[in-house]
Amino acid sequence: MTYAYLGPEGTFTESAVRRLAGGSVRDAVPFPSVPAAVESLVSGRSERAVVPLENSVSGVVPATLGELVTHAGRIRIDAQLSIGVSFDLMAAAGTELSDVRRVVTHPHAHGQCGRWVRRHLPHAELVTAASTAEAARAVADRTAPRDAAIASSAAAARYGLTVLASDIGARQDAMTRFVSLRRSGPEGPPTDRDRTALLITSDRSDPGVLTGVLGELSARQVSVTWIQSWPRPAEHGRYHFLVEVDGHITEGGLAEAVVAMRRGVDSLTLLGSYPYLVDHALVGERTAA
Amino acid sequence: MTYAYLGPEGTFTESAVRRLAGGSVRDAVPFPSVPAAVESLVSGRSERAVVPLENSVSGVVPATLGELVTHAGRIRIDAQLSIGVSFDLMAAAGTELSDVRRVVTHPHAHGQCGRWVRRHLPHAELVTAASTAEAARAVADRTAPRDAAIASSAAAARYGLTVLASDIGARQDAMTRFVSLRRSGPEGPPTDRDRTALLITSDRSDPGVLTGVLGELSARQVSVTWIQSWPRPAEHGRYHFLVEVDGHITEGGLAEAVVAMRRGVDSLTLLGSYPYLVDHALVGERTAA
Repeated sequence: MTYAYLGPEGTFTESAVRRLAGGSVRDAVPFPSVPAAVESLVSGRSERAVVPLENSVSGVVPATLGELVTHAGRIRIDAQLSIGVSFDLMAAAGTELSDVRRVVTHPHAHGQCGRWVRRHLPHAELVTAASTAEAARAVADRTAPRDAAIASSAAAARYGLTVLASDIGARQDAMTRFVSLRRSGPEGPPTDRDRTALLITSDRSDPGVLTGVLGELSARQVSVTWIQSWPRPAEHGRYHFLVEVDGHITEGGLAEAVVAMRRGVDSLTLLGSYPYLVDHALVGERTAA
Repeated sequence: MTYAYLGPEGTFTESAVRRLAGGSVRDAVPFPSVPAAVESLVSGRSERAVVPLENSVSGVVPATLGELVTHAGRIRIDAQLSIGVSFDLMAAAGTELSDVRRVVTHPHAHGQCGRWVRRHLPHAELVTAASTAEAARAVADRTAPRDAAIASSAAAARYGLTVLASDIGARQDAMTRFVSLRRSGPEGPPTDRDRTALLITSDRSDPGVLTGVLGELSARQVSVTWIQSWPRPAEHGRYHFLVEVDGHITEGGLAEAVVAMRRGVDSLTLLGSYPYLVDHALVGERTAA
């Protein structure tokens, strides 16, 4: 199986690819952005694209929602995986904590590690990078020994950096949810832990549209796990709804609800029925990798 | 009135501040991040904080949702403003389009201007900055004449750069919606264009919770304009709901619905009732500023 993923090497996304693929990664290619990874899938150069959907502390990844909406009908979610993410402070060998003058990382990681940095490195300058792994790579490439990056322990291993402090995020239980995408085709069979994602568009603006749609689900005991409005660029102030529910599209209650929902809206597109996997233990695995 | 806003100077947010304040900006201070601007408000150093909530092309700004959830009860939305945003390519005086070797901007702007850049500057290296205005500032500060930034025309004016190409985004109708925040206190009086935002939390996980909540609104002819799930970090897989509806909290149907909704959930916090303003014409104003 060939994978496109949000790179560079050493991102949490790469850890997710390894976990999702089991032993069967033939080829995993890092891409510089979510759209670039998805484009590799859509154009047929990759069989799967793995990108982050949401972090439990910093919220949704809008670029991924945008790709799901843009390519609805052409791509499907075929798995989701939540993994524990933790942040380490790392620098070139020989750098001491007291040497650090600049701290480089992704803005989300700055947010989650801000308290630790203010306490332990109150005078450090904060510099942003496009990803945590990109920050680690930048620190590894540079000759100045005064910089440190905040990234995963996998990034420290990948770029030959020394960890100065481990697990410095504000929340030890932070998780990131990744989606694995494939090109459209028949859904896989149900498992015992499926979710289904739908993209719903209605041109009606009366108060009952969303209530009606969700009512078809609750009437059949289908739980909504997640819902997001996504803007329709050409129609100011109007939105698509991305709705995720428990269960597989072939299962009785949900299959029936979807038929009923289609009657009340202008468009309803299946974004996938997929197993939802949670791996709290991956931090250790990642460290060993 | 003193304003904190997402800087640096020359951001679209600064344009929004000027528009929201009318002639009454006593003090507008740029901050390097959304949390830093909001902190200035919460701590009492500013009377308002203005930050982006959503762009019609690139979607929601998660950092702003995070601040609304974190400070719910302490801060309120007191106005929203949507303005047209357009992107220009700019460089130091004397730089020609054919000289440009690197293009610097925010990842969202790279996304929206990618097609133009691939066509007109196919060999340019793409570099990310923390904001479009930050990109303009970096280009202005640098001595190398080969860089160009993608930013607003206000940023070109602010940093003394020459516009090489105007309005290079994929969509000419792109809009960004900004929120103006204040500390909690009585709501302003209704206008004829109000919206109300609510933060809803339920510990029940049965299928009917969200349907029940929205049903109280639709039963009273209140339209939901927007809804977002926001993760609850300590409870994996559970969410708050941010719901925005038409109307003012003191108006009959909505006031009644909120009373009924409170009965069905664990917590419902008012995030504000506020006028929602749309200004398609601001692009011209901004250019003149």
